[in-house]
Amino acid sequence: MIAVCGPNEPTDEEIDLAEEVGRLVARAGSALVCGGRDGVMAAACRGAKSAGGTTIGILPGYDPNAANQWVDFPIPTGIGHARNAIVVASGDAVIAVGGGFGTLSEVALALKMGKPVIALNSWELDSDRVARFGAAANYHTASSAEDAVGVALSYMRHDLRPRETPTGHG
Amino acid sequence: MIAVCGPNEPTDEEIDLAEEVGRLVARAGSALVCGGRDGVMAAACRGAKSAGGTTIGILPGYDPNAANQWVDFPIPTGIGHARNAIVVASGDAVIAVGGGFGTLSEVALALKMGKPVIALNSWELDSDRVARFGAAANYHTASSAEDAVGVALSYMRHDLRPRETPTGHG
Amino acid sequence: MIAVCGPNEPTDEEIDLAEEVGRLVARAGSALVCGGRDGVMAAACRGAKSAGGTTIGILPGYDPNAANQWVDFPIPTGIGHARNAIVVASGDAVIAVGGGFGTLSEVALALKMGKPVIALNSWELDSDRVARFGAAANYHTASSAEDAVGVALSYMRHDLRPRETPTGHG
Amino acid sequence: MIAVCGPNEPTDEEIDLAEEVGRLVARAGSALVCGGRDGVMAAACRGAKSAGGTTIGILPGYDPNAANQWVDFPIPTGIGHARNAIVVASGDAVIAVGGGFGTLSEVALALKMGKPVIALNSWELDSDRVARFGAAANYHTASSAEDAVGVALSYMRHDLRPRETPTGHG
Repeated sequence: MIAVCGPNEPTDEEIDLAEEVGRLVARAGSALVCGGRDGVMAAACRGAKSAGGTTIGILPGYDPNAANQWVDFPIPTGIGHARNAIVVASGDAVIAVGGGFGTLSEVALALKMGKPVIALNSWELDSDRVARFGAAANYHTASSAEDAVGVALSYMRHDLRPRETPTGHG
Repeated sequence: MIAVCGPNEPTDEEIDLAEEVGRLVARAGSALVCGGRDGVMAAACRGAKSAGGTTIGILPGYDPNAANQWVDFPIPTGIGHARNAIVVASGDAVIAVGGGFGTLSEVALALKMGKPVIALNSWELDSDRVARFGAAANYHTASSAEDAVGVALSYMRHDLRPRETPTGHG
Repeated sequence: MIAVCGPNEPTDEEIDLAEEVGRLVARAGSALVCGGRDGVMAAACRGAKSAGGTTIGILPGYDPNAANQWVDFPIPTGIGHARNAIVVASGDAVIAVGGGFGTLSEVALALKMGKPVIALNSWELDSDRVARFGAAANYHTASSAEDAVGVALSYMRHDLRPRETPTGHG
Repeated sequence: MIAVCGPNEPTDEEIDLAEEVGRLVARAGSALVCGGRDGVMAAACRGAKSAGGTTIGILPGYDPNAANQWVDFPIPTGIGHARNAIVVASGDAVIAVGGGFGTLSEVALALKMGKPVIALNSWELDSDRVARFGAAANYHTASSAEDAVGVALSYMRHDLRPRETPTGHG
């Protein structure tokens, strides 16, 4: 499962990027999890559905109807901004497209949890500080939707490799 | 989406009931959401998968691998017991099969949220107190898995009726 | 710290009981934690303040001003009903005065966490089921505010005893 | 109430800054809320206690004994990283001293909630992006502990002014 984060009020360019990210995530056979609302989240879900994918929206409030129309499974948490931690905890990798403060909190929480994070037209973090806190290998900036999804998938494949090619040691 | 709650350590009878509930939820075309762990949760998911359904597990910890093997989409919340509120918030109706204190908290939280709750071999609540706090119409005890799922579905159909047969008043 | 739970809309008797519980908790030198809102929560805080105690209110929303006026330290969690888990997690013992479904969820969550729970004019739980899930020694019904606070304090003293009078076994 | 955020593993300089921040917060008569753990959080609490202040620690786990020894009121939330949202929601202003990814998530969540944030030897955010998302007036970098607490207090006084000098319009 790949988490896609981004603001409710993106630029047109961010909408296009998010839709393409969603499409590529779905084509790769991965489910897409996000915050379930509008803007980047809706565009990513729309992209995923256009490629036959599955989408999960972790909502801040209690109303499942607050999900955008491309969310297959709305999870109305009722826990407000704290739901950002669940969005990123649910992803094996996190792609941030654009981003305001909610997105920045998701990038930070994901790095805190040791997850790979790919920033696409998003916040650029001070690389010295990123390295000081041990996430130099986990934080990436991507130049395109293809690049972003490619990096995310590389982590997930790496993660799966031991199970796919057992060493014989058990 | 129907939420199914129940203990990690159920009786054999509760396992059978939960599996049958899961099967019937899936046959009705509803996704099943639960706490994602063992016991009743695993049996309900197994039942749902045996009937081609979709299952979501709202986990207390951060490890998606803690989900039972019949969970399609694990949501590792990391919020501990507080995740019980999300399990029931995600269901349009809640079915409790057996139940310890976690299940009782889910029954209570669901009634607090105004959701229909169906108890199957579970806690029996003082009906006077249930009525005093306005949930007389929402709290049911069921005699079988069929009965439990039937009651849950009746609420969901009722919920949809206004949209299906608009009255013309707008 | 002792947690006091109860409904926003209590009876007059429950208000009197809650105020007396609050007073006795403060006199015993314990801080009082609650959900921070009205009804039983406000009465308990008022009682605690009348005896010079300290009160903490774990609020469901983001507005600290939603706390009743006797809360010294409002904690606006923003996590909705899930805050019930934090209210009881913050108490060394939990006293329920009266109670609707929110209170029932707190009783259940506290028992799940292995905390002592004292019910005063509150939900009566099926004692067989309480015993089956291992909380027979933790769940009490009290006949008065004095009784309720006395039982709560006995657990807290018991909890401290090993550190005060070490057995020499290490 | 002022929230102080910072890493478990700070530099010596950050420890000194945090202790001074805690002292100044207490001298100003404000309670200090933090994540309750070690490093910057412990130093800030120690400073606050040395000046007779009150400290509240919003802990990620369920064990109140995980709080540092200068926490007066531990709140063991059990909600993991999601507790960061509660730390900042509890502050009228947020001071970040140093900071890894947990701190960055707190800065971001605070700005998302519309709170004033003062960064002291902490993450520097892209000012264009901060402005684009409407927080230009809320995000500050401070050059000293005095400066940081002074800015925080200026917001809180400003916040109180309308009540102190009513305009007569009701």
